[in-house]
Amino acid sequence: MLIYMDDSIFSETAKRVKASEIREILKLTQKPGIISLAGGLPNPQTFPLEEIKKIVNDVLNSNNNGLQYGLTEGDPELRQYIAQMMCKYGITCNPDDILITSGSQQGLDLISKILINPGDIVLVEAPSYLGALSAFRSYLCDFVDVPSDGEGIRTDLLIETLETLKEDGKKPKILYLVPNFHNPTGITTSEKRRKEIIKIASDYDLVVIEDNPYGELRYEGEHLKAIKSYDTEGRVIYLGTYSKILAPGFRIAWALGSGELIKKMIIAKQAVDLHTNTFGQRIAALYSQNYLDKHLVKILNFYRIKRDVMLSSLDEYMPNECKWTRPEGGMFNWIELPEYVDTKEMFKDAINSNVAYVIGSAFYIEENLGRHTMRLNFSFPKDEEINLGVKRLSEVIRRWL
Amino acid sequence: MLIYMDDSIFSETAKRVKASEIREILKLTQKPGIISLAGGLPNPQTFPLEEIKKIVNDVLNSNNNGLQYGLTEGDPELRQYIAQMMCKYGITCNPDDILITSGSQQGLDLISKILINPGDIVLVEAPSYLGALSAFRSYLCDFVDVPSDGEGIRTDLLIETLETLKEDGKKPKILYLVPNFHNPTGITTSEKRRKEIIKIASDYDLVVIEDNPYGELRYEGEHLKAIKSYDTEGRVIYLGTYSKILAPGFRIAWALGSGELIKKMIIAKQAVDLHTNTFGQRIAALYSQNYLDKHLVKILNFYRIKRDVMLSSLDEYMPNECKWTRPEGGMFNWIELPEYVDTKEMFKDAINSNVAYVIGSAFYIEENLGRHTMRLNFSFPKDEEINLGVKRLSEVIRRWL
Repeated sequence: MLIYMDDSIFSETAKRVKASEIREILKLTQKPGIISLAGGLPNPQTFPLEEIKKIVNDVLNSNNNGLQYGLTEGDPELRQYIAQMMCKYGITCNPDDILITSGSQQGLDLISKILINPGDIVLVEAPSYLGALSAFRSYLCDFVDVPSDGEGIRTDLLIETLETLKEDGKKPKILYLVPNFHNPTGITTSEKRRKEIIKIASDYDLVVIEDNPYGELRYEGEHLKAIKSYDTEGRVIYLGTYSKILAPGFRIAWALGSGELIKKMIIAKQAVDLHTNTFGQRIAALYSQNYLDKHLVKILNFYRIKRDVMLSSLDEYMPNECKWTRPEGGMFNWIELPEYVDTKEMFKDAINSNVAYVIGSAFYIEENLGRHTMRLNFSFPKDEEINLGVKRLSEVIRRWL
Repeated sequence: MLIYMDDSIFSETAKRVKASEIREILKLTQKPGIISLAGGLPNPQTFPLEEIKKIVNDVLNSNNNGLQYGLTEGDPELRQYIAQMMCKYGITCNPDDILITSGSQQGLDLISKILINPGDIVLVEAPSYLGALSAFRSYLCDFVDVPSDGEGIRTDLLIETLETLKEDGKKPKILYLVPNFHNPTGITTSEKRRKEIIKIASDYDLVVIEDNPYGELRYEGEHLKAIKSYDTEGRVIYLGTYSKILAPGFRIAWALGSGELIKKMIIAKQAVDLHTNTFGQRIAALYSQNYLDKHLVKILNFYRIKRDVMLSSLDEYMPNECKWTRPEGGMFNWIELPEYVDTKEMFKDAINSNVAYVIGSAFYIEENLGRHTMRLNFSFPKDEEINLGVKRLSEVIRRWL
């Protein structure tokens, strides 16, 4: 079939969005024999398969069987459950503050849709979650990044950045954060920083996106109160998901926000996809009411072991010149090599040695940052693969020192 | 909680999108005792509940159990099936030309995202499907509408409109059509017009969106070849859905397009929601392979009776001053009253008489069009409700003549 289209037909958005770099990398890692520490998938062994089998039959045998069109805002029972569950993070809210989304990615898309005009500034951590950058970028925003350290985003540098922007007459709209077990770094934002972030958001009139896909996956220590819990002005939109505590295949997540912010997101969602799949929402509702608390214990025990294997393997094999994070939860940790090692250049060597990682620079807006870093995943590989993978990787790294 | 937001924080899109007028109307129709001919839902009795029970167990017992993250473009087996199924409408295509979307509404959103810059012109029929108008509007397009008649969009007026626009230096990008059993009119675009539309699209460099949610629901006559089947230049994006032939709750639909058009939609979808729910896709794939053809016969027999009850009731009760369409399929027909009757004014009277319809003017871009028209739905009410509803409506109308 002849294709007549020239580029002029496409929107500015279409010209700007690119296929995900990580996805291209992941294709390389599917070579047989490779141990991939590059993935970002939850482990299918954590999916509550037997519980889901019971639930789908209960759903299909009920009057509310999830087959018909549903409300844009989502299943009322599910919203009710989620509103209660948010107490865990110190958040008090109503079901009306909850919008069920098709994955957290759609939450990011809807927030972008209702807030971003072309050229608006979005503040992000360096490094940052790639999927969020893609969502914001497709609305033609500009990015300004702020470094993070072991306590989360550097609030001192955030203020400095905001002041510089102010002097230039620029007023950012959004601050995007992943405060628990950050992707890619595994770092958790400290309580002190959380309070500072809310103060800064108020002082500089920012909307904060608190993206919390991994928060439930805490393997040690206590849950910290969410940034949203300190929010007295309705400035924070919190995003949560069932992808890591049930299964991602249902695409059930939620956005929690106040007043006009969440109302506009609901109206925007009407035009975007009418509503999130009702069948998956019914499954998530019954799972939450009957199985979640108990099953979560199993998930945590399963992943805690993997996290420990990852850390002990790094301790055992990695050269002294490397540093890495010790995440209290989540799916990732972050390795810093000596600055002269370029992990992008090293990548082919790793693939040839049958181990894969994600090159750290992929998570930065600015091209020259993070070139000596990488992200490792411990949620998906088998325990022995984590150990062997880190061993192989250490050998590769030693050749580049 | 104090809400600080003033309107300046929101994007131009958020300022422009509105809650669906139909949804507000539908709330009124939920009063007990009302017979609503205003809905647009498929009838739950057509959902293959027993088949779905078998399928979900088969899906959950298979290796490919639909619980993990999936490909943005969609489940390979489902895409394969759909590509073959398209032969029914004379379309030859590859699975690579198919993108699985979260309902056809998302197809409309993604097309808008990759094509529409603010101010770009979208050509639509008058009247038109409301959900499509919402999707386009949220990308800040301008609309130009072209009247349709019993054969579909008036191609003579379409050319006239395009010439006028050309003289003004304006070049529309998109032509949006629902060629089979149109929503709201129930009209099917003739073969002659389909061929003319393709010629016009080529002459004026348009992308045609062929939205076909109801095409499978043909109760008499033969399937017409799709507009896409005449497309030798890759100008047509075809949208199909499982919402009317399986169940809408799964949100499984597809876009079929050529080359860069469909590739850009796939990349855009990555940023929008990663992928459509995998569990629903697995269900749709197994349903298609094992049950669809047989179950479709049941669906058609079920709806054919309702369509016939609607038409015989209109023949029996409606005053001679009214005209209505005789759809060969789909879910709706369209009533024209004498021009001096305003169906918006008449609506309260109808509600008081315990019958509801959708006021026709809601389907028009221009406010003063279609004020004497209404849409009736025959897919959802019981047979006896259709008869009684039309009887009540006729009595209301007689009072306004």
